[in-house]
Amino acid sequence: MEFQAKINVTLKDSVLDPQGKAVTHALHALHYESVSDVRIGKYMEVRLEAESAVKATELVHGMCEELLTNPVIEKYSFELVEVVS
Amino acid sequence: MEFQAKINVTLKDSVLDPQGKAVTHALHALHYESVSDVRIGKYMEVRLEAESAVKATELVHGMCEELLTNPVIEKYSFELVEVVS
Repeated sequence: MEFQAKINVTLKDSVLDPQGKAVTHALHALHYESVSDVRIGKYMEVRLEAESAVKATELVHGMCEELLTNPVIEKYSFELVEVVS
Repeated sequence: MEFQAKINVTLKDSVLDPQGKAVTHALHALHYESVSDVRIGKYMEVRLEAESAVKATELVHGMCEELLTNPVIEKYSFELVEVVS
């Protein structure tokens, strides 16, 4: 079975996000004054083969912890979908 | 009303993604051989004030087109949630 994982990685809430602050200021300068906060993270789409959804979930957790995220300062969440055709 | 937009930005399918290719190879080297493809993008969480969900949606489309994405090579999608407390 083929799956696609849509992974969102963000800095933990306790970690300062200077890039997000810069984007907030840029939006204010473009007259989007109603924006109060921006946080910037990464988005990854991973396609993989696995025997079952449970196995695929395990694999994605493994990848996130070993390579795709830095668990000291980042947190992640993902959505797994089965690719039907 | 306060809203949060969760915005995912990815390269268009027709645009090469060398960073994704590098991550695919790194995952293979870590014995995740079942991964066939990785695409890397950006994830942004934007908090904003607006009178209604319709108005907030308009604002987020505006920001994405004016600043947050490059419409020539990137596409975006977002989910809007109302922040209740």
